[in-house]
Amino acid sequence: MDQRLSLITLGVDDLARSRAFFEQGLGWNPKEEHESVCFYQLPGLALALFGRADLAEDAKRPIDGRFSGVTLAINGRSREEVDAMFSRALAAGATALKAPEEAVWGGYSGYFADLDGHVWELAHNPGCVIHPDGSTTF
Amino acid sequence: MDQRLSLITLGVDDLARSRAFFEQGLGWNPKEEHESVCFYQLPGLALALFGRADLAEDAKRPIDGRFSGVTLAINGRSREEVDAMFSRALAAGATALKAPEEAVWGGYSGYFADLDGHVWELAHNPGCVIHPDGSTTF
Repeated sequence: MDQRLSLITLGVDDLARSRAFFEQGLGWNPKEEHESVCFYQLPGLALALFGRADLAEDAKRPIDGRFSGVTLAINGRSREEVDAMFSRALAAGATALKAPEEAVWGGYSGYFADLDGHVWELAHNPGCVIHPDGSTTF
Repeated sequence: MDQRLSLITLGVDDLARSRAFFEQGLGWNPKEEHESVCFYQLPGLALALFGRADLAEDAKRPIDGRFSGVTLAINGRSREEVDAMFSRALAAGATALKAPEEAVWGGYSGYFADLDGHVWELAHNPGCVIHPDGSTTF
């Protein structure tokens, strides 16, 4: 399983307020803006802000004190690679949260929790480019 | 404030067990191994595993249900840049957790919580290289 990250998603309570912190406050520029999610391209990977409840629902990880509100994603180059990474994570002892499935945004995505409860997404997003060195551009 | 990330740290309960998951389980290779922390170099940034209680103590963020167990770090090129980033984050509405100070590992580090409670470290680490594009090599 590739040693790389494609996306970090932070669950937020009020997207407009959180965007203002990063954009007006810190000076960051969004790469892709949608009604419920905003992506910032960083060197090597992207960071997204997404509603905390929506993120919990997407990851099938209820907000019960165990969900950190942060997800780390590794994007595969194909759906088959996503399936293979998911199987490998489970074989290594991870807990399945959502087996990879068609995603509403047009890709393919699953989630697992690692041994410490951190939530990882494995996804195939046809709209993002995975470079030969593993860095990802959204 | 630069739009980039240097390090993601995941708090873990048992470092040896978590390392086995990432190394034997997923096939990742450590870049730097210490008794209490292990770094994995990824494209553009690094990921560290560090004891959850030690991470909470370092970030001055008690494990009280509000700490996610994840920290995101931006490394500055100097202590002055760390101070400037810290001031900017506070001016934007962040909550100071630890003002930048000398760190036991030989660098300089402070922490803030963003508007949603996510914990960010700002650090100067003389041992890591920040490339012109903002990617960071440990």
